Formats: sequence, structure tokens, C-alpha cells
Amino acid sequence: MSYEVKSLNEECGIFGIWGHSDAARVTYFGLHSLQHRGQEGAGIVSNQDGRLNGYRGLGLLSEVFKDDRSLASLSGHAAIGHVRYATAGNGSVDNIQPFLFKFYDGACGLAHNGNLTNAKSLRKELEQNGAIFHSNSDTEILMHLIRGSKQPTFIDQLKESLQTVKGGFAYLLMTETAMIAALDPNAFRPLSIGQMKNGAYVVTSETCALEVIGATFVRDVGPGELIIIDDSGYKIEQYTQETQYSICSMEYIYFARPDSNIAGVNVHTARKNMGKRLAQEAPVEADMVVGVPNSSLSAASGYAEASGIPYEMGLVKNQYIARTFIQPTQELREQGVRMKLSAVRGVVEGKRVIMVDDSIVRGTTSRRIVQLLKDAGAKEVHVRIASPPLRFPCFYGIDIQTRKELIAANHSVSEIEQLIKADSLSFLSEQGLIDSIGLNYDEPYSGLCMAYFNGDYPTPLYDYEMNYQASLKEKISFARLN
Amino acid sequence: MSYEVKSLNEECGIFGIWGHSDAARVTYFGLHSLQHRGQEGAGIVSNQDGRLNGYRGLGLLSEVFKDDRSLASLSGHAAIGHVRYATAGNGSVDNIQPFLFKFYDGACGLAHNGNLTNAKSLRKELEQNGAIFHSNSDTEILMHLIRGSKQPTFIDQLKESLQTVKGGFAYLLMTETAMIAALDPNAFRPLSIGQMKNGAYVVTSETCALEVIGATFVRDVGPGELIIIDDSGYKIEQYTQETQYSICSMEYIYFARPDSNIAGVNVHTARKNMGKRLAQEAPVEADMVVGVPNSSLSAASGYAEASGIPYEMGLVKNQYIARTFIQPTQELREQGVRMKLSAVRGVVEGKRVIMVDDSIVRGTTSRRIVQLLKDAGAKEVHVRIASPPLRFPCFYGIDIQTRKELIAANHSVSEIEQLIKADSLSFLSEQGLIDSIGLNYDEPYSGLCMAYFNGDYPTPLYDYEMNYQASLKEKISFARLN
Amino acid sequence: MSYEVKSLNEECGIFGIWGHSDAARVTYFGLHSLQHRGQEGAGIVSNQDGRLNGYRGLGLLSEVFKDDRSLASLSGHAAIGHVRYATAGNGSVDNIQPFLFKFYDGACGLAHNGNLTNAKSLRKELEQNGAIFHSNSDTEILMHLIRGSKQPTFIDQLKESLQTVKGGFAYLLMTETAMIAALDPNAFRPLSIGQMKNGAYVVTSETCALEVIGATFVRDVGPGELIIIDDSGYKIEQYTQETQYSICSMEYIYFARPDSNIAGVNVHTARKNMGKRLAQEAPVEADMVVGVPNSSLSAASGYAEASGIPYEMGLVKNQYIARTFIQPTQELREQGVRMKLSAVRGVVEGKRVIMVDDSIVRGTTSRRIVQLLKDAGAKEVHVRIASPPLRFPCFYGIDIQTRKELIAANHSVSEIEQLIKADSLSFLSEQGLIDSIGLNYDEPYSGLCMAYFNGDYPTPLYDYEMNYQASLKEKISFARLN
Amino acid sequence: MSYEVKSLNEECGIFGIWGHSDAARVTYFGLHSLQHRGQEGAGIVSNQDGRLNGYRGLGLLSEVFKDDRSLASLSGHAAIGHVRYATAGNGSVDNIQPFLFKFYDGACGLAHNGNLTNAKSLRKELEQNGAIFHSNSDTEILMHLIRGSKQPTFIDQLKESLQTVKGGFAYLLMTETAMIAALDPNAFRPLSIGQMKNGAYVVTSETCALEVIGATFVRDVGPGELIIIDDSGYKIEQYTQETQYSICSMEYIYFARPDSNIAGVNVHTARKNMGKRLAQEAPVEADMVVGVPNSSLSAASGYAEASGIPYEMGLVKNQYIARTFIQPTQELREQGVRMKLSAVRGVVEGKRVIMVDDSIVRGTTSRRIVQLLKDAGAKEVHVRIASPPLRFPCFYGIDIQTRKELIAANHSVSEIEQLIKADSLSFLSEQGLIDSIGLNYDEPYSGLCMAYFNGDYPTPLYDYEMNYQASLKEKISFARLN
Repeated sequence: MSYEVKSLNEECGIFGIWGHSDAARVTYFGLHSLQHRGQEGAGIVSNQDGRLNGYRGLGLLSEVFKDDRSLASLSGHAAIGHVRYATAGNGSVDNIQPFLFKFYDGACGLAHNGNLTNAKSLRKELEQNGAIFHSNSDTEILMHLIRGSKQPTFIDQLKESLQTVKGGFAYLLMTETAMIAALDPNAFRPLSIGQMKNGAYVVTSETCALEVIGATFVRDVGPGELIIIDDSGYKIEQYTQETQYSICSMEYIYFARPDSNIAGVNVHTARKNMGKRLAQEAPVEADMVVGVPNSSLSAASGYAEASGIPYEMGLVKNQYIARTFIQPTQELREQGVRMKLSAVRGVVEGKRVIMVDDSIVRGTTSRRIVQLLKDAGAKEVHVRIASPPLRFPCFYGIDIQTRKELIAANHSVSEIEQLIKADSLSFLSEQGLIDSIGLNYDEPYSGLCMAYFNGDYPTPLYDYEMNYQASLKEKISFARLN
Repeated sequence: MSYEVKSLNEECGIFGIWGHSDAARVTYFGLHSLQHRGQEGAGIVSNQDGRLNGYRGLGLLSEVFKDDRSLASLSGHAAIGHVRYATAGNGSVDNIQPFLFKFYDGACGLAHNGNLTNAKSLRKELEQNGAIFHSNSDTEILMHLIRGSKQPTFIDQLKESLQTVKGGFAYLLMTETAMIAALDPNAFRPLSIGQMKNGAYVVTSETCALEVIGATFVRDVGPGELIIIDDSGYKIEQYTQETQYSICSMEYIYFARPDSNIAGVNVHTARKNMGKRLAQEAPVEADMVVGVPNSSLSAASGYAEASGIPYEMGLVKNQYIARTFIQPTQELREQGVRMKLSAVRGVVEGKRVIMVDDSIVRGTTSRRIVQLLKDAGAKEVHVRIASPPLRFPCFYGIDIQTRKELIAANHSVSEIEQLIKADSLSFLSEQGLIDSIGLNYDEPYSGLCMAYFNGDYPTPLYDYEMNYQASLKEKISFARLN
Repeated sequence: MSYEVKSLNEECGIFGIWGHSDAARVTYFGLHSLQHRGQEGAGIVSNQDGRLNGYRGLGLLSEVFKDDRSLASLSGHAAIGHVRYATAGNGSVDNIQPFLFKFYDGACGLAHNGNLTNAKSLRKELEQNGAIFHSNSDTEILMHLIRGSKQPTFIDQLKESLQTVKGGFAYLLMTETAMIAALDPNAFRPLSIGQMKNGAYVVTSETCALEVIGATFVRDVGPGELIIIDDSGYKIEQYTQETQYSICSMEYIYFARPDSNIAGVNVHTARKNMGKRLAQEAPVEADMVVGVPNSSLSAASGYAEASGIPYEMGLVKNQYIARTFIQPTQELREQGVRMKLSAVRGVVEGKRVIMVDDSIVRGTTSRRIVQLLKDAGAKEVHVRIASPPLRFPCFYGIDIQTRKELIAANHSVSEIEQLIKADSLSFLSEQGLIDSIGLNYDEPYSGLCMAYFNGDYPTPLYDYEMNYQASLKEKISFARLN
Repeated sequence: MSYEVKSLNEECGIFGIWGHSDAARVTYFGLHSLQHRGQEGAGIVSNQDGRLNGYRGLGLLSEVFKDDRSLASLSGHAAIGHVRYATAGNGSVDNIQPFLFKFYDGACGLAHNGNLTNAKSLRKELEQNGAIFHSNSDTEILMHLIRGSKQPTFIDQLKESLQTVKGGFAYLLMTETAMIAALDPNAFRPLSIGQMKNGAYVVTSETCALEVIGATFVRDVGPGELIIIDDSGYKIEQYTQETQYSICSMEYIYFARPDSNIAGVNVHTARKNMGKRLAQEAPVEADMVVGVPNSSLSAASGYAEASGIPYEMGLVKNQYIARTFIQPTQELREQGVRMKLSAVRGVVEGKRVIMVDDSIVRGTTSRRIVQLLKDAGAKEVHVRIASPPLRFPCFYGIDIQTRKELIAANHSVSEIEQLIKADSLSFLSEQGLIDSIGLNYDEPYSGLCMAYFNGDYPTPLYDYEMNYQASLKEKISFARLN
């Protein structure tokens, strides 16, 4: 969850509700528990007896919706909402979702979590036929496909369109008469259904939102499923039969909140299992186990428990770090000024430390933390990573689309050990990861997508195929820390 | 550190530096690591060759100093800064420190952490002699005393004034030619000296700031000490001989950052020791230990380690909670909507849980968390508090000045157990607390202030004496959770 | 120009420049002089060697572009900009222009001043063919027509599209290689070309912008003309031959800045002529002439000059009125609290006043001002309106699309005289208006559109025809002042 | 009123009311009509049954009080308010008034318009006795004098203090039981009493506020008077007998709103008279009279009327100029880009223009306007200034405290004529000014202060005496326009 430290970003969270007199407010609280999935922008579209209204803006949810007045315009019995991930650069409000489309013959809200692999070619084709896009996001594509479809009903148009788009996606739509959710044929992205005490159905990227709004879990949305929720309840349809479970393993490792369950598996428990397994696979003699806050605390406590080595708070993260624009100058950085993470001298001085982290992306962060611990007097720093080496990009919704950024794509484990100046370094094995999560689908990797680790993509890559092939030839060099 | 959850507030943090070309920026980073000590407002006064400039505002440090331009006006080789605690109501910028006084014959910046016990009578006396105050804070009093003193030098005037004020205080002053720090005769508030790599001396409420700015620890400021830092280095004087160590034990229990050391004792280690001792004093059979995030994680891991019961993440705190103005309506709260803390059903369901918290103030939060855990399916919830019951108010700088707010002031432990609906409840013993911290001053309670627990105030209470006596007769009733 | 007082709004101003190293900044200053044409929002699209960037937002230009940083992203040698008029309600940033379209095969910025009469039917037709609109404005329609055109070149596509849209329009487009302006076949909206000292060509809604940026006037854009400006200079094409000058007479009467020239006629001079003619057409014995600030000062001074009656400042407008959200309560209004306009007791008390205004829309403002003057002691108030009665709606770009809002659509002059409680009331004659402006095109009304006064629309009304016919049967009742 | 164009600033406006259930809101509207007297900051202190509350901030009134919530904290039956003038630099909220002082034995709000001539020595003396000041303003001095007084009652303490301060001042105080106003012994600053329809008494810097809130004029406050308003009505006392009318003539010439009356004389009428007299004193053959907007319109119309030469709008001021942070670069300025004022080519081209302005301070603005008119084609530009040359600084409340800034302090009229490149230049005579205003007090200059013109200060200068004598020897050089 520590988005400031890692250059690894989820692409969004979605939440919707049908059948509650205060739908937009419930959506606000649902989105609030999904804020870790996106901090760049947020929005809500509400439905009041068929009249759709929307409000969206840049920044955290609490910045977009500053007071009750901003929710006042969103009255209605149903609503969908979206939080968008943080990237530098194209921070235009044009890209903030849900989009709200108004036609002469109706209106539709649309939110999306994921990444299409054939977006570029679909967009070009649509534009050649006169379509005009207003955002950079893939999301609009679905609406153009729907509006261009010759199918007789909206649901048929939508199904046809869902068969045209490829990749990882979880869509949430609000029409005048229904809320509709759809998941890609591999179930890359998590999506669950819950029910509030008053009977209202909700759809959410993660189950943590259910606990927050007092709802009970109903079921997960499966691959290739279409969920239609309206005043008569919910209905499930299968828009394609060609499905295969390939749940994003990074959700378990890093993205999802520890109190969420994905496919019935609690995320904290999975992470603790990864830590325990890692202790078995890569033991080392030491005085203490230290987790990198906040995302690695579960794995670290698992490592400590399995190894019998005490768990200590050897690293502290400043909880007020977000939204600070004042930065140390180069000179101050050289003098040792750092804001985000502190090593605790009183704890680690003179000690042999096992530092547990969830993953390594570029390696610069690991190197900095090893240095922090040594500066604070740690005698030895043994790095243990609770996932396999990240070697391949993701095209289904995680913000790593080139191998250049991945240290493990171009260096062996022992090279990385040297580069980050650790006394030892070990990663969890692929099988260790699969066993720790413990899914038991009768599919490759028990139903997980392991492509970042092994390059075994469960679908064709379409527009990315050429890039990907080129990237296999790229070499990265490990730049100096800055 | 979770100031949103608990109604227990520190009264401020201070930081100063002398001898650095980028003094205001270093002060920014120092204050940033002290942000947990105050979120209502912040300010910095800088000194450029004898010319003092100040900037202050309401809100978090990052809100007050929005960009580099706000620091640009604060150039100079020395600076002092302040973060002020959050209370409802009198949020006027007039109260934000450091104050900057400009006289016909000089200028002076002043920041303060603590509470004076004779402020009211001093203020009345000064006003009767024509003094005019501009803020509600005690801080101005010192400056009026200094300006009214007949002593020949500024240092003599200051010493005389420090002998007049009573209570808990850590003052930081910036004159045109020196930075001066002073600590009360009991050393209630922590204050330490460090040194940056370039030789510049810094003064800080907590040592965590030293690690953040790359400084090394020099020494703690002792009771009744005056520290004068200028271009020739630092000098220590004793403004009074009547001193007695009475370090605030709540700093170890709750306020201070775990990576700070106070009087040579690491705060995380002290907390872990409290948890270990608590496991010995109050064992219970259970399936898991769960800490209340974030402040109780050290104690909980100590309890787990000593008891051999696994530590689990059974409670999750939303890290984006701060600064949200949208609140659940009464109706939504009744439907179970809650934002701050979630129990993890996937972890606690069907389990016997030991819930470790650092302290209980009003009891409403404990009751809510017990309920959360039970709603998420916990079979039993045993509450273990890693400090003794809070029974008496504090007049030295913590925001509890009446017994009305303290559940343990009026209820026995077994009554509290029932009120918060725990399956069992135990507190750490007073001796257990003293041993866990492990100071060894030859003073009462080994050098700690234990007044909140036993009413044994180490000084006269002056203006508060009458209030206090009245409060001993007050009865509180445990209102229903809201 | 007093948009606060009158419910009569222009629909936007446009400005563009090609060939200046600081194009966006010059556009800022150009737009600044057109701010009276739109206060709801503003934006600029710049072109840097074929790369287009845009920035837009709600509010006044100075609110959208708060500092130099907001212009920094708009570097380039060319830029177009837009200010949008103020209406209550649909103040979404989605509607703020220029729009910036990015295609797989290029990019285009688009800004528009005017109103299409066949927008609704075009939009429906385009949507039926799959088009998706993102704003409520007519402006997007042109881009959809262009992208759907089968013509070989962009210019041909544009010309075809311009023949499809009907009504009043001034378009400004920025492609990667040229800036293009186009005016409707009636030249309803003003549009002029100028040249800066460095040779750069500019296009602007009003010539006042030329003076502000130090440019010289080149020529007005004529009806049905297309102007193409690129590195080789400017080129004029005629996209249609079916043209007829019908310049909006309200531009002369009320909208345009007095320092602008339209079709070679200075606006202040035209207004002063209206006032002189009015003095001849409707003389009255009185002690002073008072103009309603700010838009009627020219006409009032003309009336004074022609009648020999002194011009006095009997009404004062608070220049700080804009953007005040605090309003008098109903009770305070009844006690006489008013913010915008004050009558000057020291000037009008005991005097016979001729109050000159440019026009009457609903009549409520006139009534209020008459009352103000009488409350301040005026003995008589003779209202003289420097234009004919507004009896018909406008469909070419002024925000009056129903007769309900027009008092003169349903009341005779003598009825209005009674309703506004004037001692006498006269309007300028239609011929008086035409003569005062003094155009000499060989077209109906010498080249003016007089439809608001006489219902003689110079084009078919398309989508508005039915509404218009219905509106002819509407009756308004003069509601009490509020 | 055109504070952007001229470097001549009033020092504040004050308004207060006693006896109205919505006192703070009425004060808001009163201050709103005084906004031209100060744009740097604003504040209001209200009185609810003896409990005083205050709110103040930087910026325009509408920026400080953004919505009704900001007024909600200011409930009560009485209120005083203040608008502060705009200067570069020391824009700290510490200086914004009214100040609100809270003592152990009461509370007091204080606002001030004016300038003390013995502030520096009083402040030094007070500080030597231990007083601490929090602002740079003179205003606090009065409160220190009151608190230090040994007189038995508050009114006696106030009277004693008013005899100690020297210079130009209008004070407004709010105690728990009364609203008190006091004017200096020369009545330099205007101050009037009015009454609302419900009987509430108001005090205001200018009478224009009375018209705005629907109040009637009661009387002006005279020199050396103290007005005490409470539930029993109003009472007038004389705190000194040594008085002499010396009303600031610049209020008539430039500062006050044209709809205000000062000492019974309407400001617009006085200005028009100045224009008429100027036409007699300095006639010139020309085609038109042009006033510099906005402050010179009255004088210009007077000149036109008396000379028979038509009044034309040859200069237009952009009404949206305030609060724009984007400025032309040096290069753009050289290319002729200017934002504030435009000459109207269509009006002045080829014409002989009489440009009427109210005053000349540094001369740079006049030179720029002459240039603007010539650039727009004016054949001749004859400058006529409707006041005598400004040759001496003011120490009673206008922001000119050095002769360096005054072109007429060091150049003859014919030199100025050359410097501003006018074809001719004339100023109004001193007697002409006195006659035009037409006061008839039996005092020097009929009761006006003429010191800026003739150096005849009606009081000793105290702390400024030395500066002033030095300034008499200073030479300024007319720097090039920038």
C-alpha cells in the first residue's frame, strides 16, 4: 500500500450500488476503502429515477469531495464510482472516471479497472470510421463499440463489445435502468458482489469495501461474467465461454488491502504464508526480522513466526508523507536528509537484520533501505523478498509495461545482491508463491497469472506483441541511486 | 500516533537549527518527523544575519508550506519551528507558533511545547500592569516576563522568567545572535541536541528528527537546563538547582514515535517490553494476538513473542483517513458504515482474539473495536492494555485536564470490562510499566511522571489546584457509543 | 458590459495568433480584453511545432491562469483561446473551450462563438451513426462532421462541414500546420484580423484586443469566409456564395466594448449617436441626464450633448461587485440593502432626471433603478432607452431564446412605463438605430440583424422553428420585483 | 477609485453598527461599499450580548468572507468592520483589523483609519515599559495607552489616550457594552453617523455606505468628538477643545466615492465643479474632452460642459483588471502589449484631445496615457489636471510620505509638460480647488487640508519632522517609463 515508495501502481478501483436512498454517500465510503488503488482522481455518477448526474476531479477522494455539498448534486438510489491511479504527467481531468455519456436517446455512466491489449488498434479503427475520443484512457472504447453495434438490445450490444475488447478489465456501467458489471475472460482483476443490510446490492474491486459499509459478501464475479443489477435483484450472464482463471498474483503480493479476500483467500493470510514459506526456503541466522512498512508487515511477521527470530520495528514510515511538495535539495540529500522511511538506530544498532520486502522492482528502493539500516548501525542486512523476481512486464492493468524498469529482467539474483549491497538476498520460489496463496482451480498455476515472473502470458498480447518482443532484447543498466 | 482514533493529544513539537545555509528547509524536514505531535498548525522563524522572518499557518506542515516559494522568504543560517496539536474550536492563526516579536531594540522568535500551571495568575497579573496578549496560548507569558525584567542581560532576564513560570515546558527562542532552548525543572517534555554533518547544532522534541536529517545525537537536555547555541558552539547553563526527573511516561506509551529514544531508551523497545510484561502479568489462552493500529503494534508483537501466540493483522486502519470531511449519516452508521478501522473477517472469524491496545481514555473506542471484532466473527475478545489505568488528569502538556473524560477514574477494571463488552480485560501494573521502560534515575518512579495513574504530581498545581480538587469529586457516566 | 445587472449574455469570445514566440501569453492578453464576452470559463490551446497542448478551467481568465506556471505548459509559436459566457447551472469544465482533439493521425483545437440553429437535429443524426458527444455545446458537432466527411483534404472537409451547420458562428481552429477561422454566411458575429509588429497574424472577436496587444487592424472577416493562416501568411477563401450581411445590432447596442470597431464603425460613437438621436426623437424637459453604468454612459452623454441638459453621475456602480457570494437576506432587502448600484442623493435630490439605459429585457432592473432614484429624492424620472423594444428571441448566439423573458414582447410601451413606474418612457426607433450605426451595405436594414426588434430573421430557424411559433402565443406576466 | 493605475492609496475604511439582529451581515455590505478604500485585507468583530468574536483575512472582502458560513460565527446585535489598503510587501494577516483584544477583565475590538505622527516615539516609550506589539500598525498603540491609563472609567482612559496620540485618525471600538467612535482634532478623515430603518445607528467612513444599507444620514462626526453608541442611543462628547477643521482635500479629489457627501458636499459635484473651474482657468481649443477612467469622469464632464467641447470616451479601462497575476514580459511591453487602459482609435484618431485627470503623482502614468492617445492617432493631447500640483508628502493617512515620489516636488509645470510629452499642461489653482469644494468653515482654506499642495501642515509633525526637513532637500529625477 505504500505507493510513495514503490514504482508499482495498480490501475484503479471501482465501486457501485443499486437500491439505497443514500447511494452516492455509500459509494464515497466504498471508494474510500479502495483509495490505495488510485490517488490521481476520483468520481461518482448517480442515478435518480433514470436521471444520471456526475462529479469528478483530480486528487484524493477527500480532495474531490470536499464537503457534503459536493455530494448533494448526486442524489439517487444508485451510483457507481471510480478511483484512478497516480502517474506523473497526463493528469488531466478529462481522464478521470466514471465517464458520463448523454445521448439523445439515453445516458450511461462508465468506469473501468484494467488495461486493454488491443486498445490502440481498436481506437485507430474507430477513428477511421469517424469516432472522436476525448481522453487517453481505454475506457471510452467500450462505449464507441456499444454505440456502433447493430445488436437489438443494450445488453446484446454490450456483450458483442465485450467480445471485441481484449486484455484485463473490470467494467462498471450505470444505465438509466440498471447497473451492469463485467469481468474479462481471465478474471485478471478482482471483482466481488455484496449486499447491504437493506438489501441493496454492491459491486466492488475488493471485499474490504464490504466490511467498511456493513455489507455481507455474496459472491465473486467470475471470468467472462456479466452482472445485471436492477430493481428486481441481480442476474448473471456469461458473455463468453472461452474463460480461464488467471488471477493477478500481484494483487495478493502487493496491491490489495490485507483485509480483502480474493477468490476466497484472505490477502494478509496469503502474505503471512509467503513469509513463512520464505523462512523455510531461505533461512538465515540473525537477531531480528524487520518488515518494510507498510505492505511487507504480514510477510515479515510470517517469516519471524516460522523462523523463531523476533520481529522488530526496525524501520518506521512517516504517516504524513503524502502530498508534501517540499523536497530535500541535492545537497541536503547528500547530508543524509530523508523523509519517508527511517531506520531505528535504537533497535538495529549492532544487530544482524533480516529485512523482508514484498517485491523488488527497480532495486533502487531496496538499496536505499539496506543503506539506511547500515547507517543506523545494523551489522548485517539479509534481504528476503516474499515473491519471485519480477522479470516481465504486465499488460493487464499494472503500470509496468517495459522490462527496462525491472532489475531482475537483466540481473541474476547474486548480481542484485551486490547491487543493493545486501549481505544476502533470496526470493520466494514460484511454487512457493502458488502454494502460499493456495488457490485450487484446475488451471495453469492453480488459477494465478504468473506472467511477471515467467513470461507465460495467458492470452495473446495483440498491440503489445511487437513491443514485448523488442523488450526481450533490451538491456538495463542499474543506475546509481538518486 | 493514530490521532484520529484517540482523544489524547500531545501539545506540540519543536525543532531548531543554528549554522546551516538552508536552515529553514532542514527545519521543515525536522518538523515533518514531528508532525504526529501536532496537526493544527505549523510555523518557522528564520534568522538571516540578525534579521528575523516568520511564516505560519493552520493545518499540516505540508498545507502551510505548499511549495518552495513559501520557504523562500525564510532564508538564513538559523531557524526554529513548531507544530501545534489539533483541537476542535479555537483554530485561529493567532495561536500558531513560533511567535515573532519585533521591538524597537531587537527581535525574538519563540516556540513552546508544554503547559504552565500558573499561566492564568501570571497573565492576570501582567494584564493588570498593562500587558496586552494576542493569543490564548501560555507562550506569550514568557516574553512579557522577559520584557518586564530588570535584569541587565537577555540571558539573565530569561533565567529570571524561567524561574517564574511553573509546569511542564520546553522553550525554543531565536534572538538576533543566538538560539536558546530551556527545559522545565522536571524534564516532563523530551528535548534533545544533535549535530549535522556540517557541524550545525539542532534541538528537537524527539530524536527521530535526527535520523531524518542525517544528524547524530549529542545529548538530551536535562531538567532546569538552558542551552545557548551560537556561532561559537553550544553552552549549557542551569537556571535552577531545584530539579527532579519526572519524564512523562505517556511519551513512551503513546505519544513519541517508536524510532525515538527518550533518556536513552528506545520507544519501540519500551513498548515491546510493556507487551512482554503484560503477557506475563495477564496471560490468556487464545488463537491470536491483534494490535490496534498503529500505536499498539510494538506492544502487541511483544505480547505475541512472550506468549508464543501468533501475531495476526486482525485490524486494518485506512491510511487515507485524515482530512476527510464527508461523514456517515446516523442512518448509515446504524447500517454499519465505518471508515477508519476495519476488522479482518478472513483472519478473526471463529477465533479467540487477544486485542492489545496502548491505553484506554474514554473507553468508547475500545468498545467499538471489540464490537468490530465480534461483528467480524471473533469468538472471544480479550483486551490487554499495555499501560496502567488512566485515572488522573495531566497539567504538564497533555490535553486531559478533567477526570470526566477518563473511564478508569470512575470505574473499576471489571466494570470497564463489562462496559466495553470484552471477554476479559487487564491493564499493565504500574511497576510493570516502570520496569519495562527501565530508567534508573535515583528519583521517585525511577524518574518517570506517573501522575495520570496514581495522582502523585511531582509539583504543586498552582492555578489548577482548585479545579483538581473539585474534579476528585466528579462522577462520570459511561455514555452510549455514538 | 455590466453583466451583473442585465440578464443578457453574449456567447463567448475567441482570439488566436500564429507566428509569435510567446503565443500563449499574447493570447492571454487578447482574451483578457474579451473577458466581457464570457466569464464562466476560459482556455488556450497552443501549437509548438505541430504538438498541441491545452489548458482550460472554470471562472475568469485570471482564475484559470493563476500564475506563469499555468502558461508554461503552453509554449509554442501559435495559440487559440476562448472565453465562455456565464450562465447559472451547467458549469462543467467539459463545456469549456477550446476543445483539443487528439487522433491517431493528428490533432486539432477548436473554439466557437455563436449558436447553431440545426444543432439538435445534426447531433441526433450523428449519434444515430455512432458519434459520442462529451459536452452540451454545439461546438463538437463541427468536428464530428469533419471527421465523417469523405472529402480529400482537411480544408475540403471543413468547407463541407461549414455548409452543413446553420446559424450564427465564428469558428477558430488550430491544426498542426495552420490556424483557421470561419464566419457564418450572415456575419452575425464580429471577427477581425490584425497583425502584430513582428508580423504575426491574429484573429479576434473584437478589435479592442488589437489595441491591447499593440497590433494593427488588417480587415474584418466577411460572411461565408474561411481564413487560413500559416507560416506563409494568410489566405482567404469563400466556402459559400450565399451570403448576406446581418450583423448583430446588439453588439453595437450592448455587448461589444466601446473601443471596438465593427464593420468599421466605432461602438462608442454608434452609442453616442443613438443617444443623440434619442434626444431628438424623445425630448423631455429635465434638470439632468443620468446614464446607467457602465454600458449606457456613451448613449447618455450623447443625449446630454444633443439636448443641452447637463450630464450628471446620478448612479454609481460598485466596481468590486463581481464574485461576491454573500447576499442580503430577504429581510435586509426589505430594509433597503442593495450592493450593486447606488443612486447619488447629493446629485439627484429634488431634481428631474432623464435616465438613459441601453435596453430593457425583463424590466425588473429598470423598475429597480427608477425606484432607487426616487428613493434618493428624484422628483421625476424619465426613462429613455437607446434601442427599440426587444420583442423577439435570438437564435444566433445571444442567450435569449424565449419571449417569456421579454417584457416588450407582451406589453405596450405605455404599459411598461406604468410597470417600471417611470414618469415617461421612450425607446429609440428602428430607423433611428439603423441611422445611428450607419452601416451602408446594400442589404436589408443596411446590413444589420434587427430580428429581436421586428421578428424578421434573416435565415430559416430549423430546430427552433417550432419553439418559436409556440412562443409567439406565449403570454408573460410581469412578476413583482424580487 | 482606480487603485491599479495610481500609486496613491487611502489608508482604510471603517464601518460599525449597533442594534441590528444581523449586524455582521449589514457590516459586510457597509464595508463592501468602502472596498475602494482598502483591498489588502478585511475583518469584522461582532458583539453578541457582550461576547466578542472576530474574523479577518487577506484580500478583498469577498475573498475573506467566501460564503455565509464565514459570517455564521459572527452573530450578535452589533459589529465593527475594517478594510485595509493595498501595499506591496508586508501583507501579513497580523496587520489586518479590527484587532480583537481579550483580557481577564473584558474584551475590546478596535479598528482604525489614519496615521499617527507620534507613533514611533509612543511605541518606543511603551516598549521600554514592557509593552509587546504584534503588528506593524499604529492601531495597537491606542489599546496600550488605554490599558496603561490610571483613569477610573474606560471612557476616561480612552479620552486620555486620544489626547496622547497625534495625527489623523478615525477610531472605531467595540466594547462589551458599547460601540465608540473618535475623530482626530482636525477631522482629517471623514466619519459619519447614520440610522437604519429599524433604528440601529451606524458609523461609516463614507456616506455612500448609508445609501447601500438603506440608512439615513444623521450627522458627520466633528473634530475632537467621541461618539458613544449603546442600547440607549448615541451620545457625543468632546475629548479636546483644541480643534480645527482640516478635512483632507484628496478625499474630494480622488479617494472618496462620487456618491459620498463629506461635510455636506457631494463628491461628484465637487469634482464636476473642479472640471468647470479648470475649463475657465485653462481653456484650450480642441475637438473633444476625454477623462481618465474611472476617477476623472466627473471632472472631465465638468470641463466639457463648461467649455462646450464634446465629452468622448477616448480611453477605456478593462473592468476585469484586478487580481491578474499574468503580466506582459518586457519584450511584449516593447511590442505594445498593455492590459489596463486602452485608447480608442476610432474616437481619437486625427483629433485634438483634452485629457482630464484628477491628479499627477509620479507622472509616469500621465506620460503613458499621453503616449497611448498619440499611438491611437490623437493629433494633440492637452493635459488638464483637476487639482493643484502635489508637492509635499502627507502624514495623516495617505500613503505618500516622501517627496521623492512626487514629480511636482521637483519640476516646474513646464518641465512636467515636457516630461509627459503633452502638447500643453495645466493644473487647477489652489483657490480654484477651495472654491470648487465650497466648504465655508471659518478656518484656513475654508476648512480643508491643503498641505500636499503648499506644505502648510495644520499640526506639528512630531516623529516625521526630521524626515520632512530632510526631504525638502531631496531631488528626484524623472526615471524612464517602465
